[in-house]
Amino acid sequence: MSRFRVALHIVPRRGLLDPQGKAVADALQTLGFKSVEDVHVGRHVVLELSAKSASDAEQDARAMCERLLANPVTEDFEIAGVSAR
Amino acid sequence: MSRFRVALHIVPRRGLLDPQGKAVADALQTLGFKSVEDVHVGRHVVLELSAKSASDAEQDARAMCERLLANPVTEDFEIAGVSAR
Repeated sequence: MSRFRVALHIVPRRGLLDPQGKAVADALQTLGFKSVEDVHVGRHVVLELSAKSASDAEQDARAMCERLLANPVTEDFEIAGVSAR
Repeated sequence: MSRFRVALHIVPRRGLLDPQGKAVADALQTLGFKSVEDVHVGRHVVLELSAKSASDAEQDARAMCERLLANPVTEDFEIAGVSAR
């Protein structure tokens, strides 16, 4: 078993309301950042785990997203990277 | 002015308590994912903005992190990527 670090992004599904992103965009505008058009806020999760291979680690991370980390109705997730540690 | 998408990660500073990550790690263990050793939870923010160049867009995003998005006492941020859109 080797040790891996899996980074993943969990983001509001496109087309759904993203009130947190809207609030941040408005706050940035108020602070004077007029160039900001839109903001999306999601979660950045880093899992430290042990697995036989990088592809096993990725598969485990995917299962964890489906079981717990991401809300399948409102969120999408993507594996951003798998690295040995 | 061109339009850019800047992705950034805001994570709890190393060495500080990360109660959300701890809670997620415990929940994953309880669900049977015994290979998980540690979890870190941060924010994944995507800014859509206009700027003269990619490096200007990155500099603007850095200023926004410092002014609003990241808590300088407890969080670190990193620019994950800048892309045209």
